[in-house]
Amino acid sequence: MELARFASPSWIRPVTKLGLIAGGGGLPMALVEQCLGAGRPFYVIRLKGFADPSLSAFDGGEVGLGEFKKCFDLLRAAGCEAVCFAGKVNRPDFSALKLDRRGLAILPGALIAARKGEDSILRFIISQFEQEGFTVEGAHEVSGGLALGKGPLGRLKPQQSDLDDMALGFDIAGKIGLLDIGQGVVVCRGLVLAVEAQEGTDAMLARCAQLPQALRGQQAHPAGVLVKRCKPGQEQRVDLPTIGVDTIRGAARAGLAGVVGEAGRTLIVEQAAVIETADKLGLFVVGYED
Amino acid sequence: MELARFASPSWIRPVTKLGLIAGGGGLPMALVEQCLGAGRPFYVIRLKGFADPSLSAFDGGEVGLGEFKKCFDLLRAAGCEAVCFAGKVNRPDFSALKLDRRGLAILPGALIAARKGEDSILRFIISQFEQEGFTVEGAHEVSGGLALGKGPLGRLKPQQSDLDDMALGFDIAGKIGLLDIGQGVVVCRGLVLAVEAQEGTDAMLARCAQLPQALRGQQAHPAGVLVKRCKPGQEQRVDLPTIGVDTIRGAARAGLAGVVGEAGRTLIVEQAAVIETADKLGLFVVGYED
Repeated sequence: MELARFASPSWIRPVTKLGLIAGGGGLPMALVEQCLGAGRPFYVIRLKGFADPSLSAFDGGEVGLGEFKKCFDLLRAAGCEAVCFAGKVNRPDFSALKLDRRGLAILPGALIAARKGEDSILRFIISQFEQEGFTVEGAHEVSGGLALGKGPLGRLKPQQSDLDDMALGFDIAGKIGLLDIGQGVVVCRGLVLAVEAQEGTDAMLARCAQLPQALRGQQAHPAGVLVKRCKPGQEQRVDLPTIGVDTIRGAARAGLAGVVGEAGRTLIVEQAAVIETADKLGLFVVGYED
Repeated sequence: MELARFASPSWIRPVTKLGLIAGGGGLPMALVEQCLGAGRPFYVIRLKGFADPSLSAFDGGEVGLGEFKKCFDLLRAAGCEAVCFAGKVNRPDFSALKLDRRGLAILPGALIAARKGEDSILRFIISQFEQEGFTVEGAHEVSGGLALGKGPLGRLKPQQSDLDDMALGFDIAGKIGLLDIGQGVVVCRGLVLAVEAQEGTDAMLARCAQLPQALRGQQAHPAGVLVKRCKPGQEQRVDLPTIGVDTIRGAARAGLAGVVGEAGRTLIVEQAAVIETADKLGLFVVGYED
């Protein structure tokens, strides 16, 4: 029992080549850097229209959202045994999707799953990769170092006055998640300023900065928090909430005092830069547990 | 019994002079026009920083949010026996509020109520006016003609494909209301595109128009609905959801198929113009009941 706790991950699970299935944002590149640092072989599937073009510097291929056969073929030809989904993908217009043979076969099930919500379709897609024999790893499993731990990450800690906003925000974010709406919420002095749906966190923070000043804090007198939380009970191998440098900058512009993520279930992209930015701009970053 | 049904409102309740307490948006002017049309005497309290300046064309006075004594004095000097709150007011920064004597006396209770949410503070303010002897009328009581009835308002009716979005949107809007977040939500093909918090309906619709096209309808092929619903169990004499011409235009720009309000508990500002705009832009406007 004790041995296993101290064993390295490579001892428990042999290091397999990772197929990184890359959507938008900075998370895929953060995982590439983790693989490079850990010496883990990897191959990058760049999802057309979403993946950062700079990922084409690494061994990989480009695949449309409906091209499942091409994706499986590329992963197998590259010798990948495991895959990891990382980065943002918007729900496609299914009627406009370019589908290959496997995409066509998978579509009816995907449509049924889509009707039950975001989490349902993600579980369905994971199951397709597992049926093909791939192990599906979460980004927090590929790199434990990306997950936000409990407590403050940088120099600053929440003040007494922030604790109520943190608790309310965490509660509201959980309920918003259960309704399958989104993962983020901004609360300031007991008032819900904004709820994130399809627009994303950066857009939500930008509109908070436009709200009347009486409703929110300002950089000289910050108040309120951004809370990111994954849907209670959600499939954790995809779509964990992320916090990056842009999140911190956006929160500062909105006059917030800090950024809160669920401990162990939130990914920090570019951790050193996140800490430096938060410390410089005077925000706390905290991993929260119920 | 039957007699009462056909009696005019002036027979049931003598026509008293109305103190219209005016926040932002077009609703106060719509009520002014209703009073003018019905020959009901009125006086307009323009809330500083919120009321449309054009309201100063009518007999009235300007009052800050913390000036309760001035407000009561003006209303009494004008001979008002009833008041009606109409139009949007943002929660003030209590620490920056200019308070007169009565405002100071009321503040502690207001702060306690504010902690329990928006509805709680509105009930508290209503009780203050009632303690002063004023009857508080809802905008839908001042003018029954403003309330959205059940069914379609204009030429267009929802299609079969819209009914699921209407039901989901109505359900989500009720839950969002119970969390004291807001009154509006946009749903398209089963996906919640946006939730309204402090930014207001127009800003929410504007960001829907910026979402990737695959997620939403377009004016040539509209899809999805805006649903406005007041918080279940909410004090109905203030803060009923409103639909106006801007709402219809914003919904059209977001590619929506229609606009839905709770029947009997949603106010239509400038009804003729709303119908004309919706018919021209090809949107339905529907009063919905559970």
